[in-house]
Amino acid sequence: MKPLPDFDMVLFGGTGDLAMRKLLPALYQQVKAGTVSPASRILAAARRKLSRAEFLDLAEASCKPFLGEAYDAATWKAFAERVSYFSVDAQDAASYAVLGEALGQHPDRVRVFYYSTAPEFFAAISAHLGNAGLITARSRVVVEKPLGHDLESSREINDAVGQHFAERQIFRIDHYLGKEPVQNLLALRFGNVLFEPLWRREWVQDVQITVAEQLGVEGRGDFYEHTGALRDMLQNHLLQLLCIVAMEPPTGSDPDAVRDEKLKVLRSLKPFTPMDVATKTVRGQYKAGAVGSGPVSAYVEEPGVAPDSRTETFVAVKAEIDTWRWAGVPFFLRTGKRMPDKLAEIVINFRPVPHPIFGEAAHGGRANRLIIRMQPDESMRLYLVAKQPGDAMTLQPVNLNLDFAESFRARRLEAYERLLMDAIRGKLTLFVRRDEQEAAWRWVEPILENWASSEERPKYYTAGSWGPAASSALLSRDGLAWNEED
Amino acid sequence: MKPLPDFDMVLFGGTGDLAMRKLLPALYQQVKAGTVSPASRILAAARRKLSRAEFLDLAEASCKPFLGEAYDAATWKAFAERVSYFSVDAQDAASYAVLGEALGQHPDRVRVFYYSTAPEFFAAISAHLGNAGLITARSRVVVEKPLGHDLESSREINDAVGQHFAERQIFRIDHYLGKEPVQNLLALRFGNVLFEPLWRREWVQDVQITVAEQLGVEGRGDFYEHTGALRDMLQNHLLQLLCIVAMEPPTGSDPDAVRDEKLKVLRSLKPFTPMDVATKTVRGQYKAGAVGSGPVSAYVEEPGVAPDSRTETFVAVKAEIDTWRWAGVPFFLRTGKRMPDKLAEIVINFRPVPHPIFGEAAHGGRANRLIIRMQPDESMRLYLVAKQPGDAMTLQPVNLNLDFAESFRARRLEAYERLLMDAIRGKLTLFVRRDEQEAAWRWVEPILENWASSEERPKYYTAGSWGPAASSALLSRDGLAWNEED
Repeated sequence: MKPLPDFDMVLFGGTGDLAMRKLLPALYQQVKAGTVSPASRILAAARRKLSRAEFLDLAEASCKPFLGEAYDAATWKAFAERVSYFSVDAQDAASYAVLGEALGQHPDRVRVFYYSTAPEFFAAISAHLGNAGLITARSRVVVEKPLGHDLESSREINDAVGQHFAERQIFRIDHYLGKEPVQNLLALRFGNVLFEPLWRREWVQDVQITVAEQLGVEGRGDFYEHTGALRDMLQNHLLQLLCIVAMEPPTGSDPDAVRDEKLKVLRSLKPFTPMDVATKTVRGQYKAGAVGSGPVSAYVEEPGVAPDSRTETFVAVKAEIDTWRWAGVPFFLRTGKRMPDKLAEIVINFRPVPHPIFGEAAHGGRANRLIIRMQPDESMRLYLVAKQPGDAMTLQPVNLNLDFAESFRARRLEAYERLLMDAIRGKLTLFVRRDEQEAAWRWVEPILENWASSEERPKYYTAGSWGPAASSALLSRDGLAWNEED
Repeated sequence: MKPLPDFDMVLFGGTGDLAMRKLLPALYQQVKAGTVSPASRILAAARRKLSRAEFLDLAEASCKPFLGEAYDAATWKAFAERVSYFSVDAQDAASYAVLGEALGQHPDRVRVFYYSTAPEFFAAISAHLGNAGLITARSRVVVEKPLGHDLESSREINDAVGQHFAERQIFRIDHYLGKEPVQNLLALRFGNVLFEPLWRREWVQDVQITVAEQLGVEGRGDFYEHTGALRDMLQNHLLQLLCIVAMEPPTGSDPDAVRDEKLKVLRSLKPFTPMDVATKTVRGQYKAGAVGSGPVSAYVEEPGVAPDSRTETFVAVKAEIDTWRWAGVPFFLRTGKRMPDKLAEIVINFRPVPHPIFGEAAHGGRANRLIIRMQPDESMRLYLVAKQPGDAMTLQPVNLNLDFAESFRARRLEAYERLLMDAIRGKLTLFVRRDEQEAAWRWVEPILENWASSEERPKYYTAGSWGPAASSALLSRDGLAWNEED
């Protein structure tokens, strides 16, 4: 990997969960890979009063389990030398002074502000940074979801950040876009001539995107009550994955060429009428059940959740894209908590052969499929049928690994690691543009509105199942079924 | 494998090279696999006066090296119990009497006559069998190439055999059609939806079919002087492989559905004008050189070869197919003796991506290719580009094994074994129909005629090279080159 330019990275929320689990480990990995110059600095900022030594002790203890075998004391020492800590109260202008002084030592270098805090602080942080003159021409800001809870509130946040940062400085992170299989999918589609001709309504029967979690709300019932699966997952992650699958070949790989194509997909999503919301969406909520080895309680029994809550912990939708390429091809999206497995995958189901010349009996296999999996493992597999060796023309299902991990010796990057490097390098391609985000909100708004005004309750599903029966029915009405390939 | 029906197989030329190297070992393998009933019989017939015991001693000694690890004494004993030997002079009616008597014991069972003799005996054998009433409704005849040396002589042979056998009883063998990778190619094309849309001029740049031998004429200079590479290899094997690649999806897998499509391809081959023969064909002859480890002499120094011989030991042609699917896509065929390697392969070169969005530098790889190899190993590989893991979008060539041998535990069949079983079962799909054979002769006749009447000598090439320079020039005129992938 090529060395990064000298940079200062300011992590707001520097003592938080994301910093400890993902951001600091990603920066550590880059130090270990030798791409981070000794002059580059990591400036953790959070409200807590901690000395640098206290912060580093906390960080080492917290990061270590996430670094696993990558951890070694010498690299940690080299990493720690680049780290400082600032006690900043996001809302208090005065508390930015020390941080500002430190940044002022290197006014010309790349400066990345990472807002790993609750979004209600984004406006204040941006204002204080702007007013203190800390936002330079080479500054960037990385913002984390959730950006608002609907179109209007997302606009407010974007406006507030946008008052101090130009759009080309704003890196809206969606870590699914940083995952290696998503990158591989782009390489496969646009690096080869063999897939693009098949990537259309003539040959694709349906597309399925699943992001399933085993976890419940994990004590964040309070937060989740005002969010739900549609806002938390589908509006951002699943729609971004849909864009990657459905977009036309961009004119190039520069950020706006790619994001223009994704935007076109979002704007081509067929809007939901109230009737569509009733027939093409499923909202579910988990009841008590069992996940993995143990029993778990119902969503409404979680702390912070109203006993009569209608918040969805599961959502499935049938999306349609009004373009020449995709007209008539359903894109089924589903995401939920308390599912049987942790699973994130994209399934492209190709149509069956139009005429099985070897006869149905000889055929045996299912239609061709491409499965791009991001969780629990990262992989890309093409499912074909092939002839069984021998004298008869008997076809059997086989699958091909298109992941090629074994063809290369390079270490795989975690999504956050890739995206942090891109932010430092100023590469916007894998970040979400404001207009994309707003188009996504616009498309889900009729669902939110109809659900809010409807008397209907969510469909219940047992924790540890694949969601309510209505989710299967959504596909079976088209003669289809959710993928069950392991 | 399913058991074969009870059969009697008569091998004319039963002491010959093909019988010992291929036919008897194939039948042995089937005995070992348990598909040959104890009642089935193998009746070897040849001119030599041998007792059954003498023949079996000869057969065991000759077959053993070709059976390798498959040989074991117990199976050989079981195999030998089914074998008898008949001394038959093909031209002498009286000498068929004992054979006829043996066959008469089972008038109703499947009876396969395998003509593994020089084709000048085909007429006589057919007539004697016919006149002796040995050709029953359940009889078949398997005939080996070469069937004639031009359209007219092939018609004579076909007429002579056809006087006694109906076309549906005549199994013209082309063992390349029996090879597992050729079968896999059919399964891949027509068992999956993913390849057929790409299998056309829009996505295929050119097709290359190579059958190269390291051997020279091996003491058969006499025979070869009247044959040459065009008649010996290209007219039959290479054109049959071309048909398999180029044919439209047949309506089913019954013999005539497949053979009708192959015939259509042969009839769509653009005819050669005299000018085309000059520019689109290359005839070569090897000079002294070195193949493998040792020096070898020139073709004209081989015993039985005229010192001024113009017989080609190498031929390359640019074939074109006048159909909507293939117009403008060159099919390059080449075959020769004294090449550097034993190699038989079909290469489908796909077009480059129309627009490399990641930039030429990031692309790195060549265009996509599918390589179906029959010699020296059997394999099918798809060449793609994939993303190298890491933060940059760098593409690298990778290849996928579409052979799936490791996915299945079944033993692979030798081509002759598969084809013999098909003949016993009466499955004509993989055998060449008369009209196909005649269409192939018709297409090569202008080349034969122009070469015969031309003053030009063959282009010389050094033994151990890939043929004359004109062979490369044939492709470079179109901006292309022969595949050099290992």
